[in-house]
Amino acid sequence: MAGELPLAPLKRLMKQAGAERVSDDGVEAMRDVIEAEIAELSEEANRFAQHAGRKTIKKEDVLAAH
Amino acid sequence: MAGELPLAPLKRLMKQAGAERVSDDGVEAMRDVIEAEIAELSEEANRFAQHAGRKTIKKEDVLAAH
Repeated sequence: MAGELPLAPLKRLMKQAGAERVSDDGVEAMRDVIEAEIAELSEEANRFAQHAGRKTIKKEDVLAAH
Repeated sequence: MAGELPLAPLKRLMKQAGAERVSDDGVEAMRDVIEAEIAELSEEANRFAQHAGRKTIKKEDVLAAH
């Protein structure tokens, strides 16, 4: 779980949210925070899938975990 | 803010968190949820940057917003 997400689209999203400028370490911090959030959400979604008797995480599991 | 993040690294992160399989709509749902989270965090980080008299979002702003 180390630096999977590419930085360019992350930076675009940050600017779309109103950021005028974002430093490199600002984008990297966002990546770290967001990757941790994805891990947490994925674990919870996986619990929902297993509870429903599935090994595949579906949309409904992600939304339930959110 | 529509579908900036690529799906392949998102899916890898979900599997690294323990998912055995993830459906396409499961990855897309994760992208939607996460992009909304990035927007929210970015707005908050931007407020911290402005409060510090800067137009550039730095690491400390993202961490403060988190």
